[in-house]
Amino acid sequence: MVQYSPTDRTFAALADPTRRGVLERLGRRSATISELAEPFGISLTGMKKHVRVLEDAELVTTEKVGRARRCSLGRRRLDEIEDWIESYRRMLDERLDRFGELLERNETREGSQG
Amino acid sequence: MVQYSPTDRTFAALADPTRRGVLERLGRRSATISELAEPFGISLTGMKKHVRVLEDAELVTTEKVGRARRCSLGRRRLDEIEDWIESYRRMLDERLDRFGELLERNETREGSQG
Repeated sequence: MVQYSPTDRTFAALADPTRRGVLERLGRRSATISELAEPFGISLTGMKKHVRVLEDAELVTTEKVGRARRCSLGRRRLDEIEDWIESYRRMLDERLDRFGELLERNETREGSQG
Repeated sequence: MVQYSPTDRTFAALADPTRRGVLERLGRRSATISELAEPFGISLTGMKKHVRVLEDAELVTTEKVGRARRCSLGRRRLDEIEDWIESYRRMLDERLDRFGELLERNETREGSQG
């Protein structure tokens, strides 16, 4: 069975515009499932599914309050995925540098041959 | 029908450790599907599927060379998702600032009451 890491779950949770919108919305204030569903024009069932994915990724926490379920931003931040993106970008930059050096070396060689 | 944006596709493509590994591997040098499959210990069919997801997200390009398919890093960078993460982080920071101000104001009030 595939085990999903926090990094996998965070990337997957963010791969949907409604879920990204929910995080932005909860960044302003906590909200019930129906308060979240309305502006997105989706069903309660649909929003429950999205919130569940965000909850599994620990990006959102929920709490039963009376008959409603109140959602807030969870404790997990985006550090893991930022770290991955940062190290990938560094690798790409180093690659560009090596490519640049290669070009320079070739130009020098061509210059000395000309 | 759901339309996936480049941001959606990039986040989804990165939500798998094998696909992130393939990007890191291709950052060093281009490789055929079988050269990619071997170190990950997965089947050619499995690797083809992963490469297809990366190709759809424009993170990887492939080219038929003889009987093999050579994969390289594509032209898309991670800018869109970095932008989203950056603006989300900014929002969280502002939120923390507001929370800090609220705490300070309460402390001042409690201080003046003490």
